Amino acid sequence: MKNFLDLADMPRDEIVDLLALADRLRERPEPAALQGRVLGLLFFNPSLRTRASMQVAMARLGGESFVITPGSGSWQLETRLGVAMTGSAAEHIREAIPVLDSYCDALGVRAFAEGRDLSDDLSERSFTNIASLCRRPLINLESAVNHPCQVLADWKTLDDLKVPRRSRFVLSWVNHPRALPLAVPAAAAHMAALRGMDVVVLRPPGFALPDAIMEKARRAAALSGGSVSETDDRDAALAGAHVVYAKEWGSPEHYGDAELEARARGGLGDWMVRDSWFQKTDPDCHLMHCLPVRRNVAIADDVLDGPRSRVLSQAHNRLVVQTAILYRLLGGAPAGRLH
Amino acid sequence: MKNFLDLADMPRDEIVDLLALADRLRERPEPAALQGRVLGLLFFNPSLRTRASMQVAMARLGGESFVITPGSGSWQLETRLGVAMTGSAAEHIREAIPVLDSYCDALGVRAFAEGRDLSDDLSERSFTNIASLCRRPLINLESAVNHPCQVLADWKTLDDLKVPRRSRFVLSWVNHPRALPLAVPAAAAHMAALRGMDVVVLRPPGFALPDAIMEKARRAAALSGGSVSETDDRDAALAGAHVVYAKEWGSPEHYGDAELEARARGGLGDWMVRDSWFQKTDPDCHLMHCLPVRRNVAIADDVLDGPRSRVLSQAHNRLVVQTAILYRLLGGAPAGRLH
Amino acid sequence: MKNFLDLADMPRDEIVDLLALADRLRERPEPAALQGRVLGLLFFNPSLRTRASMQVAMARLGGESFVITPGSGSWQLETRLGVAMTGSAAEHIREAIPVLDSYCDALGVRAFAEGRDLSDDLSERSFTNIASLCRRPLINLESAVNHPCQVLADWKTLDDLKVPRRSRFVLSWVNHPRALPLAVPAAAAHMAALRGMDVVVLRPPGFALPDAIMEKARRAAALSGGSVSETDDRDAALAGAHVVYAKEWGSPEHYGDAELEARARGGLGDWMVRDSWFQKTDPDCHLMHCLPVRRNVAIADDVLDGPRSRVLSQAHNRLVVQTAILYRLLGGAPAGRLH
Repeated sequence: MKNFLDLADMPRDEIVDLLALADRLRERPEPAALQGRVLGLLFFNPSLRTRASMQVAMARLGGESFVITPGSGSWQLETRLGVAMTGSAAEHIREAIPVLDSYCDALGVRAFAEGRDLSDDLSERSFTNIASLCRRPLINLESAVNHPCQVLADWKTLDDLKVPRRSRFVLSWVNHPRALPLAVPAAAAHMAALRGMDVVVLRPPGFALPDAIMEKARRAAALSGGSVSETDDRDAALAGAHVVYAKEWGSPEHYGDAELEARARGGLGDWMVRDSWFQKTDPDCHLMHCLPVRRNVAIADDVLDGPRSRVLSQAHNRLVVQTAILYRLLGGAPAGRLH
Repeated sequence: MKNFLDLADMPRDEIVDLLALADRLRERPEPAALQGRVLGLLFFNPSLRTRASMQVAMARLGGESFVITPGSGSWQLETRLGVAMTGSAAEHIREAIPVLDSYCDALGVRAFAEGRDLSDDLSERSFTNIASLCRRPLINLESAVNHPCQVLADWKTLDDLKVPRRSRFVLSWVNHPRALPLAVPAAAAHMAALRGMDVVVLRPPGFALPDAIMEKARRAAALSGGSVSETDDRDAALAGAHVVYAKEWGSPEHYGDAELEARARGGLGDWMVRDSWFQKTDPDCHLMHCLPVRRNVAIADDVLDGPRSRVLSQAHNRLVVQTAILYRLLGGAPAGRLH
Repeated sequence: MKNFLDLADMPRDEIVDLLALADRLRERPEPAALQGRVLGLLFFNPSLRTRASMQVAMARLGGESFVITPGSGSWQLETRLGVAMTGSAAEHIREAIPVLDSYCDALGVRAFAEGRDLSDDLSERSFTNIASLCRRPLINLESAVNHPCQVLADWKTLDDLKVPRRSRFVLSWVNHPRALPLAVPAAAAHMAALRGMDVVVLRPPGFALPDAIMEKARRAAALSGGSVSETDDRDAALAGAHVVYAKEWGSPEHYGDAELEARARGGLGDWMVRDSWFQKTDPDCHLMHCLPVRRNVAIADDVLDGPRSRVLSQAHNRLVVQTAILYRLLGGAPAGRLH
């Protein structure tokens, strides 16, 4: 494993192996495995789970990490190519990324969608630029339309819960005060399809996921024997569901237009997961969400605090699976030296 | 010791033992005692000493730590229960705290008083909510009306200086441009009383500490043979003092009302510790302050730079006693594993 | 070596030895050399390379570090002496520095020029105050008119490139949207002169470096057999150059006056390093810059991305030389204990 950028880069078997490694390291920790290794973490956007769990994962393996947050204690970074840098960014990623890469044994980068041009974001233009500047292993800590660490943790959570491979995974749009990126819904649909599940994308009119995202999930389903469908009929979607994976995202139809987008989500306040959503699901239906979640906007208190909620297990599994990712990327290689 | 939340939770003997442990670890460091352990630090409010000394204490014991600051590189956190989260907070402590708790071996949290409702703050509503969400050891890094790490360091400083148990400890209000929390005065009065000292709370009219705080100190004094009194007569209070512990706090009478509060502190500019304050004290009287301190507002330069000042010893003892707290909370337990 | 504040504090032989140590530690790392040691890092100003490379250098040597950034998660710090602290700074360096110093084994501090009074900044008033408050080794991470870590890395880069001692080092002013500090040009001119090079300071009229800075470089040249000259004739300066060291700085003539300064730099947009600058240089002429650099303002894309650019080597050598600095300051001493 050279990088960890997208579950789609890995054969399904390799993912299953990685999850088994995560289990093994949970049962039999290797506290000196990454002694002397250093992970650099570059956060263009806020983080709680990702930052804490990556730092702890390194520490649990005997390694070290450092965090750089452009614009907060560090220079704002320009990502566009070819521009005259007369604005607020003092440094370009073309310098910053290779420099940080040269200091550490692996680099993790979070760079959310810019949210202006849908095709730019769907093409992962910015993250692809970043990746092209790295010589050491790179970990995607959430890019424009991907969040592989999150959905690997979600897969682990489904396994831990013994949710059968062939079961009904409803990825449901939920309410939020503003447009959020497509990274988690895109990655979750792909992951569940690749796991072999029957994925139903439930969303109100105007919030269909872009074709490229749906196609990628369908290709994964074809490989794994799962299926992918979409609907705006909530009752139909939820009937018999084994998992409701709630997620907020912005309308792809009005991408980058805050005003039209806000109008599109007007009147969608009832897209908040309530106990009543589970009336016709499988009786043991699980509620999942990647967090952070706005209580009583996206999901009601009683559901989050109730017995169906798996959000804390998902979050804890971030640590569990990232430990395996770091071990796979950095373990066994000769001890860190200055290059 | 399961948590470190309040000196009042511990029998006096246990505190004395903890201070002896701090001495032992200062003399004979144990640089591998907490190998593989991780301390999470969550700061809702600014910090210099607390953050640095907690990170160094873990490092000196062979462990690791990470820092999360909501609103700066991490999501703003909602603390109120039952609200619809339509505002600026993207995440609730009901998720954030258990998630961080699940990543580490112990959690330290700083959450200052909200400064709106006195009874809310006196009840430690917010910190109690946080504590109820933790399964691992929790350390109070300053809550609404407590700062046990600070006052344990202060106790250690008094011991290092050989200040007799039965001596005159004057907790004096001092000037500040705005209302500060009650945490340190409350905790310092309680600590000195529990140590067995004669505590005199000196404050201008309108700045009497709330009954609940005075009562808690009086109960501690009753246990330890000390005493607690209060006055606005500075000359009487300072006569014979062995320790002047200066501290800024807001008027409890005008709690949460910035305008009335500002009016109450108008004309109190002479409540700045000057050399003249020590004319009738014990000749060896010590000046203490928890820092940060505004020079020439709360305490004059010549006193802070003079021979009575113990502020640097107090600050250094933060590291000394917290090393013992971490050792007691985490030492001896089986090495950290993923849960 | 007690501190690392200025290359001028060290005999030239000691610098050469330090560079040899850096080479040795690059070839034969000592991953346990600083086990149990803690480096405190205090950043009054933004940083990417310095912060990351200092943290990684400690980690590579088995030690730990922590970062405090006043005004971001920590109190704003007052640096002026004798003032009544009624403003936004809650703490004074007279407390903060000794406290942090007492927690760690060495302290690194970045405190840029204030940019108001030239003679204040030239005298290093602020950093000298800070240094006087430290008992442990102090590392200058960029002060008003110095950046010794940067220029030691630059010296290493010149050695790695086998640039002969007696060669032509052109320190050229380049364009920037606003006045930047004199720290890097001052330190780079001094370093190159001390290395024994023929230093040519090339700058437009109005941007001559202050006499004190030029004098210091000339004294170093006199010791080492180099030379120092200055000119505003770009063609003459670049003819035969072996190194072009590009750097932005504010006009010393209009120090602290943003408006006059902006006027002085009007029309200097052609002071951007382009490929054409190398027409009459030595054919193997290197381009150096300390970073961060504004692309297509200070240096054109094609030069930064072309074969002459050494900026990434310089940045990587920050890690290489700082590892040696830390080893020299902290290695061999008895293991860290609480004081």
